[in-house]
Amino acid sequence: MTSSATIMNVGTEWLVDADGCSAELLRDVDAIRRICEQIIDDLELRVVGCGVWHKFPHPGGVTGMFLLTESHLACHTYPELGVATFNLYCCRNRPRWDWEKKLSDALSASIVTVQVVTRGASEAEVEDRAISAQGVRRR
Amino acid sequence: MTSSATIMNVGTEWLVDADGCSAELLRDVDAIRRICEQIIDDLELRVVGCGVWHKFPHPGGVTGMFLLTESHLACHTYPELGVATFNLYCCRNRPRWDWEKKLSDALSASIVTVQVVTRGASEAEVEDRAISAQGVRRR
Repeated sequence: MTSSATIMNVGTEWLVDADGCSAELLRDVDAIRRICEQIIDDLELRVVGCGVWHKFPHPGGVTGMFLLTESHLACHTYPELGVATFNLYCCRNRPRWDWEKKLSDALSASIVTVQVVTRGASEAEVEDRAISAQGVRRR
Repeated sequence: MTSSATIMNVGTEWLVDADGCSAELLRDVDAIRRICEQIIDDLELRVVGCGVWHKFPHPGGVTGMFLLTESHLACHTYPELGVATFNLYCCRNRPRWDWEKKLSDALSASIVTVQVVTRGASEAEVEDRAISAQGVRRR
């Protein structure tokens, strides 16, 4: 494969991991739902149908998923570890959400890592690819 | 942040991009559903509720999402580009699925890239992280 290979960009995915979050908030479906709805509103995403939610038994983690016309949004929480993870996959251009500030405000996250991955890339790109970690911060 | 920072591993995510696929198969909800069900069966994943499916108007891409007790599985297809993408996020250990062979067989994919990302990592790990691209192949 040479560097002339076609790059088939079919979207951008943000993989977001928030650490040091409030365990109580991570067990609260309404709190997690509000964050997802804020992402959807702020980025003008369009939900197909409605979100799917599940609260697991003890320790009470929450999963939420939205099928979007722009691809999908998913969230998982791990209250026993103080961690929430988000996947936002957009096949249409959207600005970068301010994950660091918003998750710090909404979940008391102390560390937020944001990785950006271009989806659909061919092997020429993958050979050279390094993950892009942005916005790591500690309050 | 020093190298002694805690790494909070909350799961493994496989980001899989298949290129050169049959456009007809990428428009076929049943074909895409069968692939997802094979992944679920082979890896003994447990679906919460049932999968959510949507077929978009022309060019006829398909999205499928499964909420799992092990986290989630999502698939998007782009028949106009011959591309299918999969996200499999497992918060419990699972073996690596043979994405290359299975997607080659099921979708006539000619290039399959598999990236493996550890979720929930703290900034110490992210600073050193490079994406792991495995199994790139061209038939």
